[in-house]
Amino acid sequence: MAGAEIEQLVALMARLPGLGPRSARRAVLTLLKRREAMMQPLAQALSAAAAAVRPCGICGNLDSMDPCAICADPQRSAVTLCVVADVGDLWALERAGAHRGRYHVLGGTLSALEGIGPDDLSFAALLARVRGSHGETVEEVILATSATVEGQTTAHYAADLLAPEGVRLTRLAHGVPVGGELDYLDDGTIAAALQSRRSL
Amino acid sequence: MAGAEIEQLVALMARLPGLGPRSARRAVLTLLKRREAMMQPLAQALSAAAAAVRPCGICGNLDSMDPCAICADPQRSAVTLCVVADVGDLWALERAGAHRGRYHVLGGTLSALEGIGPDDLSFAALLARVRGSHGETVEEVILATSATVEGQTTAHYAADLLAPEGVRLTRLAHGVPVGGELDYLDDGTIAAALQSRRSL
Repeated sequence: MAGAEIEQLVALMARLPGLGPRSARRAVLTLLKRREAMMQPLAQALSAAAAAVRPCGICGNLDSMDPCAICADPQRSAVTLCVVADVGDLWALERAGAHRGRYHVLGGTLSALEGIGPDDLSFAALLARVRGSHGETVEEVILATSATVEGQTTAHYAADLLAPEGVRLTRLAHGVPVGGELDYLDDGTIAAALQSRRSL
Repeated sequence: MAGAEIEQLVALMARLPGLGPRSARRAVLTLLKRREAMMQPLAQALSAAAAAVRPCGICGNLDSMDPCAICADPQRSAVTLCVVADVGDLWALERAGAHRGRYHVLGGTLSALEGIGPDDLSFAALLARVRGSHGETVEEVILATSATVEGQTTAHYAADLLAPEGVRLTRLAHGVPVGGELDYLDDGTIAAALQSRRSL
């Protein structure tokens, strides 16, 4: 249909999550029409991020500095360490702004189906951190993996691993999402919310 | 949350059609994890396309050559000239592979609301082409604008403009989309399909 450059660009864009061939074409067309305002800045931002962004040597977060801005922040200590499966989960927790400690990114969840075992995730580094490998004094480890089967399996594995270390182990509460309608909630969540009910 | 490079990249990605802040973050995370396989190729493809792709001087199609591959193709002549609002429409027609002539991209549709008048679109170039400005001998002009109010207004304007030139003016047929269920079709389409019914 169009030039090789356009075809190539559409093919690459279509591989992004959330974009199919049709929306990739629409995005490329928008970019081609806004060459100066959108296309060149995006190309530069991609190159800059590809060159600068690295995983943090302590926690695994992606940032242009190492240690990352969170690990380097003197206001935040690893007294409470929040263990997440993925950098996307770390971003979500940071947006909520409720965790003032540090993180540990495992790099995925245990999955027998996908052949991801404990050695594929950064459990060893987590154990080392709890033991003070980076001079941190961890008192509580929040196991903030997703409430899926894989997420819960991963949390259990981490809990078994860390139990002998004498740190406090916690997990995120289950319950009704804020703004969520009971009518649309699954039975498991309703049961969990009822069981963990709190006095007014 | 993350480094300035990442924030900047997410902000630029979120401006693409079909991507919001959430899906832009997901796309950026995927890119950061596949730096070599996806991120650098995408940055290069964007730069290459931004540098190479230009509107065709004859028809307005976007391509890395000028005249574009369609106008330069000796197998295709402008005996039948298909007038479209946008390059995206040209791509859609090319994917269908049913038009073997050339195109003319108007660059939009007439819209009183958005303040887009005839002078903002390439009607003058269209009239000139029909009169042979590029040595083409146009016999039929297919007005392939969308079946929206703006699209039809634009087609009517083009038809009025070209009527004195003695070329055959046609438009795309209205009817039931292939694979479409009658039950879900609007009344206007059903009425049009019934009116344009064909003998078996």
